[in-house]
Amino acid sequence: MQVTKLNLAERSYDIVVGKGVITFLGGYIKKLELGDSAYVITNSALRKRYGLRLERLLQQAGLEVKFRLIPDSEKSKSFSQLITAIEDISNFDKNRRVFILAFGGGVIGDLAGFVAAVYKRGISYVQVPTTLLAQVDSAIGGKTAVDLAQGKNLAGAFYQPRLVLSDVRLLRSLKPREMRSGLAEVIKYALIKDKELFNYLEKNYPAVLRKDYSVLQHIISRSSWIKAAVVSRDEQETRNLRTLLNFGHTIAHALENALGYRGLTHGEAVALGMLVACGISVRLAKLKSRDAARIEGLISKVGLPVKISGLSLAKVIQAHYHDKKFIGAENRFVLLRGIGKAEVVSNVALKVIREALKERIIV
Amino acid sequence: MQVTKLNLAERSYDIVVGKGVITFLGGYIKKLELGDSAYVITNSALRKRYGLRLERLLQQAGLEVKFRLIPDSEKSKSFSQLITAIEDISNFDKNRRVFILAFGGGVIGDLAGFVAAVYKRGISYVQVPTTLLAQVDSAIGGKTAVDLAQGKNLAGAFYQPRLVLSDVRLLRSLKPREMRSGLAEVIKYALIKDKELFNYLEKNYPAVLRKDYSVLQHIISRSSWIKAAVVSRDEQETRNLRTLLNFGHTIAHALENALGYRGLTHGEAVALGMLVACGISVRLAKLKSRDAARIEGLISKVGLPVKISGLSLAKVIQAHYHDKKFIGAENRFVLLRGIGKAEVVSNVALKVIREALKERIIV
Repeated sequence: MQVTKLNLAERSYDIVVGKGVITFLGGYIKKLELGDSAYVITNSALRKRYGLRLERLLQQAGLEVKFRLIPDSEKSKSFSQLITAIEDISNFDKNRRVFILAFGGGVIGDLAGFVAAVYKRGISYVQVPTTLLAQVDSAIGGKTAVDLAQGKNLAGAFYQPRLVLSDVRLLRSLKPREMRSGLAEVIKYALIKDKELFNYLEKNYPAVLRKDYSVLQHIISRSSWIKAAVVSRDEQETRNLRTLLNFGHTIAHALENALGYRGLTHGEAVALGMLVACGISVRLAKLKSRDAARIEGLISKVGLPVKISGLSLAKVIQAHYHDKKFIGAENRFVLLRGIGKAEVVSNVALKVIREALKERIIV
Repeated sequence: MQVTKLNLAERSYDIVVGKGVITFLGGYIKKLELGDSAYVITNSALRKRYGLRLERLLQQAGLEVKFRLIPDSEKSKSFSQLITAIEDISNFDKNRRVFILAFGGGVIGDLAGFVAAVYKRGISYVQVPTTLLAQVDSAIGGKTAVDLAQGKNLAGAFYQPRLVLSDVRLLRSLKPREMRSGLAEVIKYALIKDKELFNYLEKNYPAVLRKDYSVLQHIISRSSWIKAAVVSRDEQETRNLRTLLNFGHTIAHALENALGYRGLTHGEAVALGMLVACGISVRLAKLKSRDAARIEGLISKVGLPVKISGLSLAKVIQAHYHDKKFIGAENRFVLLRGIGKAEVVSNVALKVIREALKERIIV
């Protein structure tokens, strides 16, 4: 077990990573005085697989428990799910002290966190992420949101959980494609901040994919530590620091958007986005071709895509220019100066973006 | 003109009170670097009366302006208005830097603040309150919210504006009943924190009601100063300090709820709620009957109600027990120890509450 503290003064919290750490849930809830009633937001597959055990754990801690099941789809990150959940909690919450438990992947975590952020102007919540992607990324750092037709995550809040419990045993039912998708974010951390982690991944990716718990614990706590360090210094992304975590994401969002959010998992889109960012970095003479090749090598070996077909370049470029990170007339990219070294660069020439994108699109 | 600073580290802001201060709007927006496009949330009556002038002021500061009109009703504090506004802004907001300007009373301020809190996880907003109630209370302190069928303000955020501009000239079209409603909150500040203000009101209430600008400036900046002092020390109402601002409001909410939010203005309900709280304070031997009589005298002289008819005691008590401020099995009241001295008291006996309420209900 490894515990990382995310430091934000009185809003600091622990990120606990390890095998079987879910058994500490009740103790933490008591210690943190989160309340007497747990409103668990999850989906039906997770409820079926882990619901009874989770309910027992919470009841043994003296808590009342209510489950809310949401469909397992990005579509659940909607205002309609938000409103229904709030109405449901307010019916459950008669003279209780309710907190929220997000038990699931990124969709559940983002929605549940936003519910916690706005119900009665903010109640406590705990993240128990059940996917690799959520354990290394989305469950940490307090970015909560729902989507609108006009764009993903267009309404939300920065609202920190009181605890993140990442039990690697919850990953045992995860499909290989979901494991790889999470791995893309781990590679991202390595590329922007941690060359050692990159070396480790090159050596140990087969163990990750076959779900060796101790290797998983290592990469998840390493990723958690990096994310916690960044978020504690730039919680609301006002200092170009948290921006580094968007490495590969600018293009990933454009790809996902151009594809209508079908076909690619988020991690797959991030993998491609990172490769485009590497291509731009090489063209701007920031990154050595040799390093770019090494990065592409790892991405390819773990089974993430390095090229994509069935997509028009024009559509991706257009989606890019509608990104919410696009400020004023300037674009902004996170680029690499080497493995483990990233920086924010503004005003990259469209020609360079286009060339780097072209490399990844099969016509 | 009087400027009060609400201190919250890097989220501090000015509250500017005076005659004609709206002319400073453009200068402040530039100085604070709020953006290049103003999304003004208001209603059609205000738009008709002040829209052209406001638009010109903003355009002279080099800003693009878009108005959004919402119906002038508590019903506008809804998720449906929130969502429509967010969609509308995201269509307006193509490569701009948009901030929100709340131009109206409490409903507009609460809704607009919540829109600002959640759009893209938070953008800047400015409060330009146009009612006495909003100038002395709701525009200050960052409480934003919408209502649900299950209760008022059930979803919202603590999210501070970047500036509050209270121009007393905007009150010249305000109806007498709305003036009195705002005055109830001014009396509240006097009762919990400021005996001098109470004395001042006893002497000058006729000048308030005939809208003497210098008297208005005095009571609004005094109220703003008190609210700013409280909010800067207890922003999220976690220390029983901001709770003092709820003096009279526990019962007021129960009355409004029992009446289905018809018949009483918020200020009228607060006036009655303060009298019930005084009644409880006298019964618990905290407040002298002589002071309670003086308080009732002022409330009565300004034309606020001291009794109410057409309401069942049982219904009010029931509504009270469903209040969101009701925590666990305990009730909590703000009571007076004298004029200008308030405290939070838990577990007031139902019998005492009932007696104090009975005094105010005409059967």
